[in-house]
Amino acid sequence: MEIYYRGEQFDPNFYYLSKVDIDHSFLIIDGKNRELLTPKMNYEIAKNQFSGKVSTYGADLWDILKRRLGKRTVGADLGALSANLAKKIGEKCTLKDTSKKMLEQRMKKTEAEVTKTKRAAREAREIIEGIDLKNHKTEKDVEKTLKKETIERGLELAFEPIVASGKNTAFPHYHAGEKKLEDIVLIDFGVKYERYCSDLTRCIIMGDNKKLKDEYEKLQNVCDGILDQMNHHKTGADVAKEAEKALMNAGFPKLIHSIGHGVGLEVHEWPRLGLKSEDKIAQTIMAIEPAFYIPGRYGMRFEQTIFFDGKRARVLD
Amino acid sequence: MEIYYRGEQFDPNFYYLSKVDIDHSFLIIDGKNRELLTPKMNYEIAKNQFSGKVSTYGADLWDILKRRLGKRTVGADLGALSANLAKKIGEKCTLKDTSKKMLEQRMKKTEAEVTKTKRAAREAREIIEGIDLKNHKTEKDVEKTLKKETIERGLELAFEPIVASGKNTAFPHYHAGEKKLEDIVLIDFGVKYERYCSDLTRCIIMGDNKKLKDEYEKLQNVCDGILDQMNHHKTGADVAKEAEKALMNAGFPKLIHSIGHGVGLEVHEWPRLGLKSEDKIAQTIMAIEPAFYIPGRYGMRFEQTIFFDGKRARVLD
Repeated sequence: MEIYYRGEQFDPNFYYLSKVDIDHSFLIIDGKNRELLTPKMNYEIAKNQFSGKVSTYGADLWDILKRRLGKRTVGADLGALSANLAKKIGEKCTLKDTSKKMLEQRMKKTEAEVTKTKRAAREAREIIEGIDLKNHKTEKDVEKTLKKETIERGLELAFEPIVASGKNTAFPHYHAGEKKLEDIVLIDFGVKYERYCSDLTRCIIMGDNKKLKDEYEKLQNVCDGILDQMNHHKTGADVAKEAEKALMNAGFPKLIHSIGHGVGLEVHEWPRLGLKSEDKIAQTIMAIEPAFYIPGRYGMRFEQTIFFDGKRARVLD
Repeated sequence: MEIYYRGEQFDPNFYYLSKVDIDHSFLIIDGKNRELLTPKMNYEIAKNQFSGKVSTYGADLWDILKRRLGKRTVGADLGALSANLAKKIGEKCTLKDTSKKMLEQRMKKTEAEVTKTKRAAREAREIIEGIDLKNHKTEKDVEKTLKKETIERGLELAFEPIVASGKNTAFPHYHAGEKKLEDIVLIDFGVKYERYCSDLTRCIIMGDNKKLKDEYEKLQNVCDGILDQMNHHKTGADVAKEAEKALMNAGFPKLIHSIGHGVGLEVHEWPRLGLKSEDKIAQTIMAIEPAFYIPGRYGMRFEQTIFFDGKRARVLD
């Protein structure tokens, strides 16, 4: 038996298992039986959308949970459930963490998931490429266009976009400010299509600075090189080592963040691509993002969303 | 001593206490000393924004936390911290829940907070009133305009807007679909201004249906009546009872959700306005939302964001 909860916020595991996104609802899985326990005012919507039993709760929530879970061992996502809620549910039964199991399960993507991500990646690329920097003065202006175009296409942001220019490109986690556009404009942007995220970074070199253009081209080549070698690799650590070598060979400094991450219902999910990661990369969607940052001066990042079927890495964007 | 964590998502208590919103950071409060513990790549931004000590962590996170927290009793927001993270931190020290204390603290608003909310409420009202329904065919078209105008004004959504028309107005938690606009268009919408939320609902009666127009006017009068009586009340329960009486006197059915809720850094926060709520309402910002729903037919809701100084309820929007 397992229980999942979707409170005020979207919960990826709740959605993955229930295929619905209804606030303040519990999903109870008991073998083949699936029950959605939702506040009365969500009943009609839940009934229309959820393909299992729908029950409602009010002040009787804890009694219902006691009847359903009573003294059993129940799986729950303790990486998402708050300590207080876990404690309260844990008074009715013995909770067992399923967060790692779920991250592993979500890591391997189905064809349908790849198709949705591909669409999310293509839309994000089109939005970035559609921006005419001449019509934008500041980082915030570019951010506005990214966001408005996302809405125009009926999509959602996968995360708050980063638009950095000049010295701000040296901060990997900058957002967007009033800075005038100059030299380099770094755009890190992704959208969700049917809940599936994309994650792309592009640098636009303004003017004719050949040195900068060459550096960016070299960075793109590093990314290509990493993808070309993917078929020799099994784990996240393999990819991280490959990236470390490729960046070094191209004369770039050591990365201060990991070379990438899994992408799916969350923009950062498994496989992890750190130097110690044993996560298997076959059949996963990843963002690969070689970069360099020169503190106080500038930085560059190139990021693609890819699918690796175990044999070949395919760029989705 | 207290510890707060802001992971992938905005955390209201972390922000309230630190005045910064930096991902994957711990705030450690020890008397007057405040330390922000952040990943290396956020160091520069943290240093620029945070008014206390900034330290970085990497793989040494748990050692640092052990040194800082070592065996003490440490306050933490166990309503937000995941069960797994609380367990891990709890191995270094004894955690004590501060979630209720924080919700109580955030309930009483300062003048600065009222000013920000007032701006958020005014902007939301202007955006709703600026919509020309003649240029919109479906619920989703209206939703797009709400979202684009929010971005145009440099604001954020306080929550996913609800745009419901015709029969869909009978679902209190509907979002927006492909339905053509007809009869009634219910818009439940709010924005954030400097992190502070507003929450408004308006119904627009299309055409000349006098019965619907009269009903909506009666609902607005119920809302006015509740505000006029606010000075006689002390707790959330008092407001809930007042609302129950006012709706009944006006001939409306019993509400299937509460009459409202506190509004602040979160769109739903304390004071709670249920029939058993002992939350004190003086000096709080609330959304008051009388409504009725006739299943299968239609519904209406009128919602204002107000500030109650203990003597007088003032509409902020």
